[in-house]
Amino acid sequence: MEEPLGEHCIIDLYDCRGDILDNLEDIQSTMLEAARIAGATVIDRRFHKFSPQGVTGVVVIAESHLSIHTWPELNYAALDLFTCNLRMKMESVFTLLESRFSPGSMDVRRIPRGILDLERRRNIEVEKLDRALV
Amino acid sequence: MEEPLGEHCIIDLYDCRGDILDNLEDIQSTMLEAARIAGATVIDRRFHKFSPQGVTGVVVIAESHLSIHTWPELNYAALDLFTCNLRMKMESVFTLLESRFSPGSMDVRRIPRGILDLERRRNIEVEKLDRALV
Repeated sequence: MEEPLGEHCIIDLYDCRGDILDNLEDIQSTMLEAARIAGATVIDRRFHKFSPQGVTGVVVIAESHLSIHTWPELNYAALDLFTCNLRMKMESVFTLLESRFSPGSMDVRRIPRGILDLERRRNIEVEKLDRALV
Repeated sequence: MEEPLGEHCIIDLYDCRGDILDNLEDIQSTMLEAARIAGATVIDRRFHKFSPQGVTGVVVIAESHLSIHTWPELNYAALDLFTCNLRMKMESVFTLLESRFSPGSMDVRRIPRGILDLERRRNIEVEKLDRALV
């Protein structure tokens, strides 16, 4: 069966510690580490700290991108990881994010992208994982 | 009812002209125009041309990000637009993308992000639009 061209992981982290979500240096380090353990090739990165709070960051990779946007005041972070390498180690990335952000809950949706066969993409379902958090 | 913190639009463009998808300058111009008509505040942008073909680009906006990744050889482009401003003019952006890329078909998924109420987010569905193309 024909594979999609890429996979887009949409990740919501709830009930994180606010101070973690407001630390640009730590967040950038985590995102670059995520790219590294996924086996991605980093092309560029852009991180920005908002006033009074919040961080946004994008890592451009040869395989597409990673992004993070945080709301420290609401203990929430939105991430996505889009890759055209279907053999990337996504589970290792999820584990890293859990370890670094210690979310109370983490929602992951895995969306196949670029399904060239029309009939197949009409029937595609978004897989939503409820991660079992320790 | 409590609103989500943001909306993430996942956009797949199929059957585009390959030369359009390989033109970094035009693609960058389109993405910045998309940010402008959406009413976004551009913070930064990074665009990259791959060899032998393909363009990847990210526009960091105060409201989150826009991205594009193209496969000219397959006439396919993957975009996303994440915003924490729920009043952005997404329909105008979709119309712009149709006009600039002339896709044979365009799939849009609109995913609510950051739903702080646990019960509500358990029941969330991803809305998938089949755009009626002229």
